[in-house]
Amino acid sequence: MSIKAFVFDAYGTLYDVQSVAGATEAAFPGHGETITQIWRMKQLEYTWLRSAMGAYADFWAVTRDALAYTLDVLGLSASEAAIAALAEAYNHLAPYPDSLAALNALAGKRLAILSNGSPAMLDALVRHSGLSERFEAVLSIDAAQVYKPDPRSYRLVEARMGVKPDEVVFVSSNGFDVAGAKHFGFKVARIARVSPTALHAEIASAAPIPPKTLFKALRMQEERLGETPDWVIGSLGELPALVAGL
Amino acid sequence: MSIKAFVFDAYGTLYDVQSVAGATEAAFPGHGETITQIWRMKQLEYTWLRSAMGAYADFWAVTRDALAYTLDVLGLSASEAAIAALAEAYNHLAPYPDSLAALNALAGKRLAILSNGSPAMLDALVRHSGLSERFEAVLSIDAAQVYKPDPRSYRLVEARMGVKPDEVVFVSSNGFDVAGAKHFGFKVARIARVSPTALHAEIASAAPIPPKTLFKALRMQEERLGETPDWVIGSLGELPALVAGL
Repeated sequence: MSIKAFVFDAYGTLYDVQSVAGATEAAFPGHGETITQIWRMKQLEYTWLRSAMGAYADFWAVTRDALAYTLDVLGLSASEAAIAALAEAYNHLAPYPDSLAALNALAGKRLAILSNGSPAMLDALVRHSGLSERFEAVLSIDAAQVYKPDPRSYRLVEARMGVKPDEVVFVSSNGFDVAGAKHFGFKVARIARVSPTALHAEIASAAPIPPKTLFKALRMQEERLGETPDWVIGSLGELPALVAGL
Repeated sequence: MSIKAFVFDAYGTLYDVQSVAGATEAAFPGHGETITQIWRMKQLEYTWLRSAMGAYADFWAVTRDALAYTLDVLGLSASEAAIAALAEAYNHLAPYPDSLAALNALAGKRLAILSNGSPAMLDALVRHSGLSERFEAVLSIDAAQVYKPDPRSYRLVEARMGVKPDEVVFVSSNGFDVAGAKHFGFKVARIARVSPTALHAEIASAAPIPPKTLFKALRMQEERLGETPDWVIGSLGELPALVAGL
């Protein structure tokens, strides 16, 4: 197999979107976890809906809109300035510990990010986490004005890096992104940091299921969208060994 | 204002998708409510994702896939035949009581359905509920091979009924559909059967928030997608009075 580049999803794959929970809890004590979960779900929904409607707005707008919606649902309120300030948490996400290890081990290979994030958000994210030097390219779907999993978003990789889809290993922990990237023609590695089976006992013992547990289980479950990833690995730390075997 | 037709969304607007809860509870005692909520959420997600991926599958396939995913998440299992049997509940949804009253009051006007449902599902749904005679047209997005809120789905109304977008009052209780229909150019009436404010007290008093309450609040909250409906009414029963004023 001739693999020429490794392209990573950012939010939820290299960077832990759950790491905004500290900021949401500080802003709305007692509601942090619920806000974090709904916010992320709605942020993704709004990307899909805006792409479908033909009403693109960049990820910074979508992220603030999704947060405002979340506060609406919970009967909480905040000024536009406070919403923007809290949304800044998405520009300071913590990388997963296994992200750094994997990027170190893959040094020397052609590495890139392809993300829904706006160029300014991605620039801030990569810079704040000290990872700017690791990537040949940090690609935002903003250049296509359409979000993943639309094939026009994935096409940016070939356009910018000159590598064909089947020469790319695309790495994501987001089920919709795994399905979309595979349907597009990339080789795909799904990162499944938590096994759904491990969550079943937690779900079975909780009545009602707390939002945090429920949304985690929803995220971790493989999607039924007619596509199967080439590899499923438990962490990015397993990526170097997988790559060595290619 | 020159209004020539009234076009209704089906699932969640004329028909109560929550009415599958009896069937899900009978099949999986103790899990009925949670299954009902996740199933509906995922059913919609899969329509958006398949449209975005360019991997259309009809609503009957999507409905079964979303149910299979839901059982996966909860660690439950069922045969393909059992999944199809349970999915049949979507072909026997109860119309909301206010649906019948509104359709009676609007008799003589040009009335239609525009729905994500496959032609076979819509045929069964309308027939089982005895509403076949009420509609001039029952339009499935299957003819466009793309789901709402893609504008190509809404375009079926003009193609089949010969009415321009601004001559149509489109009626939906689904936030994404309200935004999509408005962005497309229809006049839009949003049906908000439950006020989000009424849910805030319920949410505030519950810790953790039960899935049923949480998902209801998510559905009832108006979306922040840059579009505002022309009218917001508390039930379809208010539609005749609204129409009389046009």
